[in-house]
Amino acid sequence: MLRLALPRLPRLGPVRRFHQSGSRRRRAQLTAKTYPALRRDERFAQLTDADVAHFRHELRGSNAVLEDDDDGSELAGYNRDWMGKYRGQSRLVLRPESTEEVRRILEYCHERRLAVVPQGGNTGLVGGSVPVFDEIVVSLARLQTIHSLDDTSGCLVLDAGVLLETADSYLAERGFIFPLDLGAKGSCQVGGNVATNAGGLRLLRYGSLHGSVLGMEAVMPDGTILDDLCTLRKNNTGYDIKQLLIGSEGTLGIITKLAVQCPPRPAAVNVAYLGLGSFTAARRAFREARSRLSEILSAFELMDRRSQQVVRAVRGADFRRPLEDDELPFYCLIETSGSDAAHDYEKLERFLEFVLSEGIVADGVVAQDATQAKALWNWREAIPECVGHWGGVYKYDVSIPMTDMYSLVEDVRARLIQQKLMAPESSQSSSPSSSSQDAFTVQAVIGYGHMGDANLHLNVAVRQYDRRVEEALEPFVYEWIGARRGSISAEHGLGLAKRDFIRYSRSETMVMLMKKIKELYDPKGIMNPYKYLK
Amino acid sequence: MLRLALPRLPRLGPVRRFHQSGSRRRRAQLTAKTYPALRRDERFAQLTDADVAHFRHELRGSNAVLEDDDDGSELAGYNRDWMGKYRGQSRLVLRPESTEEVRRILEYCHERRLAVVPQGGNTGLVGGSVPVFDEIVVSLARLQTIHSLDDTSGCLVLDAGVLLETADSYLAERGFIFPLDLGAKGSCQVGGNVATNAGGLRLLRYGSLHGSVLGMEAVMPDGTILDDLCTLRKNNTGYDIKQLLIGSEGTLGIITKLAVQCPPRPAAVNVAYLGLGSFTAARRAFREARSRLSEILSAFELMDRRSQQVVRAVRGADFRRPLEDDELPFYCLIETSGSDAAHDYEKLERFLEFVLSEGIVADGVVAQDATQAKALWNWREAIPECVGHWGGVYKYDVSIPMTDMYSLVEDVRARLIQQKLMAPESSQSSSPSSSSQDAFTVQAVIGYGHMGDANLHLNVAVRQYDRRVEEALEPFVYEWIGARRGSISAEHGLGLAKRDFIRYSRSETMVMLMKKIKELYDPKGIMNPYKYLK
Repeated sequence: MLRLALPRLPRLGPVRRFHQSGSRRRRAQLTAKTYPALRRDERFAQLTDADVAHFRHELRGSNAVLEDDDDGSELAGYNRDWMGKYRGQSRLVLRPESTEEVRRILEYCHERRLAVVPQGGNTGLVGGSVPVFDEIVVSLARLQTIHSLDDTSGCLVLDAGVLLETADSYLAERGFIFPLDLGAKGSCQVGGNVATNAGGLRLLRYGSLHGSVLGMEAVMPDGTILDDLCTLRKNNTGYDIKQLLIGSEGTLGIITKLAVQCPPRPAAVNVAYLGLGSFTAARRAFREARSRLSEILSAFELMDRRSQQVVRAVRGADFRRPLEDDELPFYCLIETSGSDAAHDYEKLERFLEFVLSEGIVADGVVAQDATQAKALWNWREAIPECVGHWGGVYKYDVSIPMTDMYSLVEDVRARLIQQKLMAPESSQSSSPSSSSQDAFTVQAVIGYGHMGDANLHLNVAVRQYDRRVEEALEPFVYEWIGARRGSISAEHGLGLAKRDFIRYSRSETMVMLMKKIKELYDPKGIMNPYKYLK
Repeated sequence: MLRLALPRLPRLGPVRRFHQSGSRRRRAQLTAKTYPALRRDERFAQLTDADVAHFRHELRGSNAVLEDDDDGSELAGYNRDWMGKYRGQSRLVLRPESTEEVRRILEYCHERRLAVVPQGGNTGLVGGSVPVFDEIVVSLARLQTIHSLDDTSGCLVLDAGVLLETADSYLAERGFIFPLDLGAKGSCQVGGNVATNAGGLRLLRYGSLHGSVLGMEAVMPDGTILDDLCTLRKNNTGYDIKQLLIGSEGTLGIITKLAVQCPPRPAAVNVAYLGLGSFTAARRAFREARSRLSEILSAFELMDRRSQQVVRAVRGADFRRPLEDDELPFYCLIETSGSDAAHDYEKLERFLEFVLSEGIVADGVVAQDATQAKALWNWREAIPECVGHWGGVYKYDVSIPMTDMYSLVEDVRARLIQQKLMAPESSQSSSPSSSSQDAFTVQAVIGYGHMGDANLHLNVAVRQYDRRVEEALEPFVYEWIGARRGSISAEHGLGLAKRDFIRYSRSETMVMLMKKIKELYDPKGIMNPYKYLK
């Protein structure tokens, strides 16, 4: 019998959120310096004392209007991103407590032509939620109400500023699940999730937000309220305008409320962790999982050897490895979620027996309880945090047709070695303090991600950000993806980081059609300027 | 044990497609006469011989350009809808065989300001796919190629003119399923399905087309090609413009190709047919099904007593009833689709035991094989056809929050009886030829639909179309729905039939935001005029 059991997996604390990682301590350089070609658009008005007085009059609450102090520390958290890559120079943060207040803000800013950056949990990875120059930050943090849950249909109505984790906990108590999950759930807001069309860990099972978001209330750039808070699954009465705001990253308006279709919460969750001898084997395993686990397959995550070495090296020996053999080229985490524990376990067991007996999978374990399941997930979720250990990380979040998915990592690695920016493979060590590597800027090139969605995270870990590394990576990575008709940003979005590269994934015609939308709804261009489309 | 078995369900022929029903024989009145307030927009050019010659030169194939003959019979099928409600006066049908030919057509029509009606399978219910005056019909019937299926990801790339049934059969042979199914599958085209955002029978399980359509190629009104045939599940690079065309009913462009995410085909399908004592019981049954059948629940269809009486009366005694007691107020059809027959049957059995023992369900049967399953589906799918038996049908396809869902049928029935347009309930008979009913125009008011999506079909069967009935129904039905924040068109769309009523489901602001989109992409208004937005 090839039945697997997980013998001695230790108990571990909860997974730390990756946005609380060490990199937060760094003080970022001003974005205006990092991107010297960017100039403040002088068509935007300068903020005056009269503007501030106006907002103080319009918004309720003692902490609704935050002005910067002289050393910039008061607004520091609103001006910078968590990775320490972007830093803006906003001198005003507005924290409205209602849709009506958001409407007043935008109507006024539109009239005065004051530029605005909407900000949710500020957990993004592409600099989309922080200002570049002196844009006014509009934080949604005070829109905190969960309005209703229809316990027959599963439709949840809630404010944009509700934390994803809060929403999911509320649903858990009532037998439902939020159709989205991601590492930053303790800090990110559902409005920001929808504005960036977050993908995350449950997309394979519950589909994209374009299908799950039933209704939306949003304030358009001129203060018009898009009132489409439909709670019905079907409503074919006109163009589905709200779809444009899903993934618009704050450039078309500010989402204030959402109606989200939430599925019943699965009663049973199983997690397996498998080791594989090649990427071809990982692809075969995915195909078998999709066919044999079918409706209960809820995650199929890929991790390469280097990513697991990094987690082990950073977390230390206490972080017990799931498999004896931790030098296999690939590892996969498979999760099932279903309504019947016995049925699900039986399906998973049959799947595992098949892939082991066929030699598709070299080794594997199955969690026997929730603690073990969490520990296995830790090997996946710890990667983004651990890879930041050396200093900085160049992060690429791409979609590539599955056949070619991992070749990108190999090609990037070869290129960096060839350019002498990274130690040759033979001399690489998993230890962060290895002396042979010290001479090189690049410490690790790792690949991991949501294999079920053909979504790869390519991370290049460096001791410090370095122009030579950047030049080796870009536009190389984008050209590589463009040539294979992939997406240069699968789930992270464009923001400032990817703005200049959209044409590797979209034609000039598509960009033109998009720009027309932007000009239509935001003719003065006040919403989140300098980003998204160029 | 309350285990159910279906003892003697007879073998039946395949379900006849409802679009082949008897009503097709009627010759419809010209739409221009039915809607006397409509006037031809004289800004549109008149078709000339030079235009026809131009198209003959541009399009390949002997049947690419069809002109009307003197008695109008040549183009009759393109000018009328299948229900016999709408009849246009087009004198030219174009049948392009490629995206490039569609592009040439629209570029020329835009330049000349010739109005155009795109036409797929012409199976719609709101007059959206036939001309009103002399618009040129552009049929997509020759765009027939299935381009590719990625057998790892399940992404299918195909032409807009492929029949839904053809696409699904292609997928069935390869272990996949199209995420949409509906009664007209033998005639409707996938391009038309997406253009009308068809909902159908699998939405409960596989979600809406806004989530399933990964990529699209379309020709915009000025001939610009929207080239977004992305085959990736994740691609966050700019506004998702294609979403606007999903449900745009031919008013923003012509869809030419699609990339659709297709799930693995379920290995096991079970069907149960239940009788229930009240609508409250039906709601409880749905909640239990959603929670207990969870990931395998693929349909939960509601039928009222009157709908089943009508099917029985029209089909005759050979059409053996599933339950002995056919005078219960409600019947439900439940379908499960999963990857393991034994598991699924076990789950279904436990669900049935529970709802029977709790008294939620009064009686029920479970199909023991595919033939019996088909026979049970027949009692649901035969409704739209049988209800047309008397002559005409006023059809409403609405979404209403589930608590109130069936009250609409009761209120409409009471209103028609009160206005003496229908026999009092006590004297109603299920026989189409009952003499006591003959004095009345309205023969039956029935309610059925996709309970899982809170989507009700209200059908009012009449001996002939009658202005008094229409005035009793409208705007009454729309006001009723508007007051409950429902949708006046859940899946059928707006077309011409619902154009004037959109404001019962959408605010003036939403309509204004929609109109801006129409003016942006179709400034000359040539695409499917007179319909959709007013």
